[in-house]
Amino acid sequence: MSILPTDVLGQLEQQSIELPSWAFGNSGTRFKVFATPGTPRDPFEKIADAAQVHRFTALAPKVALHIPWDKVDDYSALRAHAEEHGVELGTVNSNTFQDDDYKFGALTHEDGAVRRKAIDHHLECIDIMHATGSRDLKIWLAEGSNYPGQADLRGRQDRLQESLEEIYARLGDEHRLVLEYKFFEPAFYHTDVPDWGTSYAQVAALGHKAMVCLDTGHHAPGTNIEFIVMQLLRLGKLGSFDFNSRFYADDDLIVGAADPYQLFRILFEVIRGGGLNNPDVAFMLDQCHNVEDKVPGQIRSVLNVQEMTARALIVDTEALRAAQVSGDVLEANRIFMDAFYTDVRPALAEWRESRGLPADPMAAFAASGYLQQIAADRVGGVQASWGA
Amino acid sequence: MSILPTDVLGQLEQQSIELPSWAFGNSGTRFKVFATPGTPRDPFEKIADAAQVHRFTALAPKVALHIPWDKVDDYSALRAHAEEHGVELGTVNSNTFQDDDYKFGALTHEDGAVRRKAIDHHLECIDIMHATGSRDLKIWLAEGSNYPGQADLRGRQDRLQESLEEIYARLGDEHRLVLEYKFFEPAFYHTDVPDWGTSYAQVAALGHKAMVCLDTGHHAPGTNIEFIVMQLLRLGKLGSFDFNSRFYADDDLIVGAADPYQLFRILFEVIRGGGLNNPDVAFMLDQCHNVEDKVPGQIRSVLNVQEMTARALIVDTEALRAAQVSGDVLEANRIFMDAFYTDVRPALAEWRESRGLPADPMAAFAASGYLQQIAADRVGGVQASWGA
Amino acid sequence: MSILPTDVLGQLEQQSIELPSWAFGNSGTRFKVFATPGTPRDPFEKIADAAQVHRFTALAPKVALHIPWDKVDDYSALRAHAEEHGVELGTVNSNTFQDDDYKFGALTHEDGAVRRKAIDHHLECIDIMHATGSRDLKIWLAEGSNYPGQADLRGRQDRLQESLEEIYARLGDEHRLVLEYKFFEPAFYHTDVPDWGTSYAQVAALGHKAMVCLDTGHHAPGTNIEFIVMQLLRLGKLGSFDFNSRFYADDDLIVGAADPYQLFRILFEVIRGGGLNNPDVAFMLDQCHNVEDKVPGQIRSVLNVQEMTARALIVDTEALRAAQVSGDVLEANRIFMDAFYTDVRPALAEWRESRGLPADPMAAFAASGYLQQIAADRVGGVQASWGA
Amino acid sequence: MSILPTDVLGQLEQQSIELPSWAFGNSGTRFKVFATPGTPRDPFEKIADAAQVHRFTALAPKVALHIPWDKVDDYSALRAHAEEHGVELGTVNSNTFQDDDYKFGALTHEDGAVRRKAIDHHLECIDIMHATGSRDLKIWLAEGSNYPGQADLRGRQDRLQESLEEIYARLGDEHRLVLEYKFFEPAFYHTDVPDWGTSYAQVAALGHKAMVCLDTGHHAPGTNIEFIVMQLLRLGKLGSFDFNSRFYADDDLIVGAADPYQLFRILFEVIRGGGLNNPDVAFMLDQCHNVEDKVPGQIRSVLNVQEMTARALIVDTEALRAAQVSGDVLEANRIFMDAFYTDVRPALAEWRESRGLPADPMAAFAASGYLQQIAADRVGGVQASWGA
Repeated sequence: MSILPTDVLGQLEQQSIELPSWAFGNSGTRFKVFATPGTPRDPFEKIADAAQVHRFTALAPKVALHIPWDKVDDYSALRAHAEEHGVELGTVNSNTFQDDDYKFGALTHEDGAVRRKAIDHHLECIDIMHATGSRDLKIWLAEGSNYPGQADLRGRQDRLQESLEEIYARLGDEHRLVLEYKFFEPAFYHTDVPDWGTSYAQVAALGHKAMVCLDTGHHAPGTNIEFIVMQLLRLGKLGSFDFNSRFYADDDLIVGAADPYQLFRILFEVIRGGGLNNPDVAFMLDQCHNVEDKVPGQIRSVLNVQEMTARALIVDTEALRAAQVSGDVLEANRIFMDAFYTDVRPALAEWRESRGLPADPMAAFAASGYLQQIAADRVGGVQASWGA
Repeated sequence: MSILPTDVLGQLEQQSIELPSWAFGNSGTRFKVFATPGTPRDPFEKIADAAQVHRFTALAPKVALHIPWDKVDDYSALRAHAEEHGVELGTVNSNTFQDDDYKFGALTHEDGAVRRKAIDHHLECIDIMHATGSRDLKIWLAEGSNYPGQADLRGRQDRLQESLEEIYARLGDEHRLVLEYKFFEPAFYHTDVPDWGTSYAQVAALGHKAMVCLDTGHHAPGTNIEFIVMQLLRLGKLGSFDFNSRFYADDDLIVGAADPYQLFRILFEVIRGGGLNNPDVAFMLDQCHNVEDKVPGQIRSVLNVQEMTARALIVDTEALRAAQVSGDVLEANRIFMDAFYTDVRPALAEWRESRGLPADPMAAFAASGYLQQIAADRVGGVQASWGA
Repeated sequence: MSILPTDVLGQLEQQSIELPSWAFGNSGTRFKVFATPGTPRDPFEKIADAAQVHRFTALAPKVALHIPWDKVDDYSALRAHAEEHGVELGTVNSNTFQDDDYKFGALTHEDGAVRRKAIDHHLECIDIMHATGSRDLKIWLAEGSNYPGQADLRGRQDRLQESLEEIYARLGDEHRLVLEYKFFEPAFYHTDVPDWGTSYAQVAALGHKAMVCLDTGHHAPGTNIEFIVMQLLRLGKLGSFDFNSRFYADDDLIVGAADPYQLFRILFEVIRGGGLNNPDVAFMLDQCHNVEDKVPGQIRSVLNVQEMTARALIVDTEALRAAQVSGDVLEANRIFMDAFYTDVRPALAEWRESRGLPADPMAAFAASGYLQQIAADRVGGVQASWGA
Repeated sequence: MSILPTDVLGQLEQQSIELPSWAFGNSGTRFKVFATPGTPRDPFEKIADAAQVHRFTALAPKVALHIPWDKVDDYSALRAHAEEHGVELGTVNSNTFQDDDYKFGALTHEDGAVRRKAIDHHLECIDIMHATGSRDLKIWLAEGSNYPGQADLRGRQDRLQESLEEIYARLGDEHRLVLEYKFFEPAFYHTDVPDWGTSYAQVAALGHKAMVCLDTGHHAPGTNIEFIVMQLLRLGKLGSFDFNSRFYADDDLIVGAADPYQLFRILFEVIRGGGLNNPDVAFMLDQCHNVEDKVPGQIRSVLNVQEMTARALIVDTEALRAAQVSGDVLEANRIFMDAFYTDVRPALAEWRESRGLPADPMAAFAASGYLQQIAADRVGGVQASWGA
């Protein structure tokens, strides 16, 4: 197994990628949401599905919750349910985009009563974090405007800071706030946290428990994302990743599906900057499955991250440094791409088997009959989706 | 009224912009559709709303229908209803994106039975066109794929051609087929009609009754849209416009809201190429109103097109030609922008009044109390939206 | 002159836009640089040309220098020459992209000797600033890489910080360092200062005399530039503007030529954030003239900024706030665009005349015969361009 | 060597990629062109360098010429020189962008005398094709405009057609005309052949000897290039490829360097559509080497195409079709990516050796001392670049 040396395997063994509970519900576009038999009807069933991903890969020990989609009466029951299935509850994601009150903003709204409501929602999330044992409160804001003049950009930014300060103040000692940025959608003219610079400026003003969340699909065309990874690690403010991929817009495709080489470059900078298996940097998926099956879609995703991490770990960094220092462009690029082009899949399969995991998690899951089982079992009820 | 000479006013008097019935229903993003009091519950109410736009502007005598959203039992009743409200039924739009069968395509589907169903839907649309007196069948296809390898691009293109041929063969003598292109969404890796070249190649193979529909929001960043207008007019294949605007993605913002100067350039090429008030080129809106009121949103839209057409009509084309021929870049640009910067609004207001129209249609509509009236009247029922 | 109230005219009277000396030399693309008769052969002639812009517009009292292109033996002579022509010497721009040593970087280079040379160049620029009476040292870095793996992104960022610290330490009390960002070109894979976030992080670490330079042409497609203006003003770090415009790449077109409404929105945020006529925010052009005449190209540019500033100043901000607060999207947008669509040009022409300036500076300059004169006078010598 | 079956090797053995003579000269950006010792001073030396690429790879038997850069007094001598070095002269590229007359256009110019000159240049190129035995005349036009209003888009398109007709009429029976498109640069507002649709419409009007050239770097962001490949093959109009890669603008990076997976997808569609080893479709590089060594840069490029062709050839198309037909998105994508992820390099190395070629052409070339030799030999003279 010379392709993957022991220290690389040691790194891979520690790798952990959090799954989003909402990936197991139905999702789609504004044009159509296609339903699938067996889709979970409640948070318990979502966690059961998520646990399958971990069972077959040993890569996904945590499940992120989305409030209010995953609200339950008894979080200790949910926590126990997760543990029984071999996973833990993870990051809590707030939601300020599905209430009529939030049509023109939430944490940034002109109306103090709406801001109050949105802040209170986050305080409730923090309460839930205590109940679930979660560390991170992830905030993605759908706020913005569609037309120039519609909104006072500056006033909104100032109100955002005030609202975040109040939320931040409520965090427990063990908690963190991670602020996600997104350059468009669902607002189409401006969003209030459009880029890493804005997220960084906001969290830097809050304090050491506030960090930036980098969603790989939330950048303008042509953006060098690995550069941002480098910079945020350098500044000590990379709190978490939301992995997914996109060809053009925010499509939430399977991570690594659109541009695998970009994923390689991102993971290389993660390693270069000390972000791999660093508890300060949470790896998480944030993608949905419009046309493909959900559980295997998530299995494919965590495997993509694992395979690409393995490739990034085997870059001959010593030789690379020598080529960089000497200005040998072609040699440096060759060394870099050599790792990318190395087929680590057979070695990973062998290693999985040595750990009691299936060599081919996708095939093993398909053979398990789980999808057929849930399709048969989960009859009636309302399938989970973004709206429920 | 020297700013707008008589011949310009004569051109403006003929201008006609078709409205989309769906603009009066609720719409939004995959994150949230905000509802508004008074939203129509059926096609009759949509037409009543659309008629308000025409009443205050004299710019919008036709309403485009969307099938099945606007299916009714009795199209002659719908037609009579429209006429009573002072408008006509216009283009019929097909819909092959909201049925579970169409998850992996419609006119391009691998399965002949699904293609049959999709073709039959278009044949039904043609039947409806006979009943409504519509000329144009507009086809926008949501078809495509999300992942490389998922679909056989070539096979789909060939099947598209076959399906279109069957639909084309069914057109009446007075009918046309207009094929819209869109470079992404709801499919995220490939769409089957992504660009004007594909639409042109397809309709050129069909025959003289098939034309291209140019939706101003359906291009990659940086695309020079007015160039395409020029080219399609030159090739005799510009069948219709779907006007709207966008900052980044396909946002369906009010036409002229994002880049008014681009709208000016587009209209200048329309005029330059003989497309204005040319029956072969249908002007139509295709935009929705996520956060603003719908009827005034449509009034604003047709006014934007009118105002910008007026500006484009007053370019001093003789002087412009002289500057172009002599290579005087700054002077040519000055002449061009001078028209854009000319404030035609007071002259248009005066002209509207001279025709018995309100000088300020937005203010007049607001004063009419229509929105309050429909909010009070339309109680109960299900508000129209993309899903119904 | 009711369109432009007295306080607006008072603001406009103070407006000052610095000109780049290099705009008067030849420039072009990698494919071809077209030469023009009369192009300056030395910094003195560039300043003479720049002074014409100020003479006809009273808008451009300063000329930015580029070192080494504008190196002279006697800066006090150059300063006196400028003053004789009615202008002052302004910002000093460094150049670390035209020396063979800088093929793989300058302030970020792996080799300490090259960094030393690049730092020393900046120290020399600071010496020149003392001689010229300049306040600002503007640093745009062409540094980056073309291929993944070619460069160590993180190491380069750290070295950049170290190099900037040494330069910063040498600034006089009256000096400032402004760091420009650019997302691509001439490096095509990564640039070391690609976005405002990076520039901000770097200058924030340096101290209060270091600021960000926002070049309007240096963003990814779809970027909301006025948002960045707002944010940098809010953070107290907007040091200067480089105005120009672009349709796609970094084309250096005349400011306002590609998207005048975007320029309006930018200037509105400048005013909203207190950046207009604020000595902390330098307005500067950074654009070249590939196919149009240079002096009138610059006149057109400063007029564009003036005209758009006038429009931005007449936004009815009180009514706008009311519409924003009440969530009246259409009304807020109407108020905003009403100012944009107002034709301020006649009022500006009248006002110019009242101040002893030509009503139409473009026409007056053309009538002056200056271009013919320099074409006749400047015979022999080597025309200035980026290479000299 | 089971990874690459015999029929795949048979396909690879036929593969031929034409090299651009200008890749061996100096090139760069508008900011700086870095020179390299040993750079050719004339077409003979360029061909000698190009022959090295073929010698070490057996992939590049032809060299494309650029007129006037590669004009010589005696083309039969050049032809003989090529043959002595084991290569042939290939495509002739015209140049209408480096003469002062072409500032505002060439084949589209308002002035008939300039058009005449540009047409005559192409007729001269056809004469040269007779002398060199070339089949293809490749036309890339730098024509366009920088400012709206500067040019009459429609008139230019009509003149383009007329000019092309005259050139087309002069082609010999064995000749072809291939028309390249490019969506921006060096013109920044509009280019006269911006997209495949325009090129297609133009060549379709000319006749069967006119074809489209697809340059992989000449598309707007987000464009699905493999779709265009499919469409042009389907329409029978894909005449040639210009391979290169880009992260953002037209950077002319080494093919496969920016997005190897995109190159895979393109080559898959080439094979799917019957374009591989089809004499109608010429494979050509069009890229330059700003910072890396030129000869090895070209070797790397042809190897990248070969390696990716091998991957595209081993897609299990039967299994892929089955997954596509059954709508198994994840399985179809897995099969597709499995080929991409397969490391074909060892098998290719072994196969090369079996054919008497070096297993590692890059290493073998480096060991040959050729670069050192030309650096020592080529002293004096003027190094070739775009300007000469």
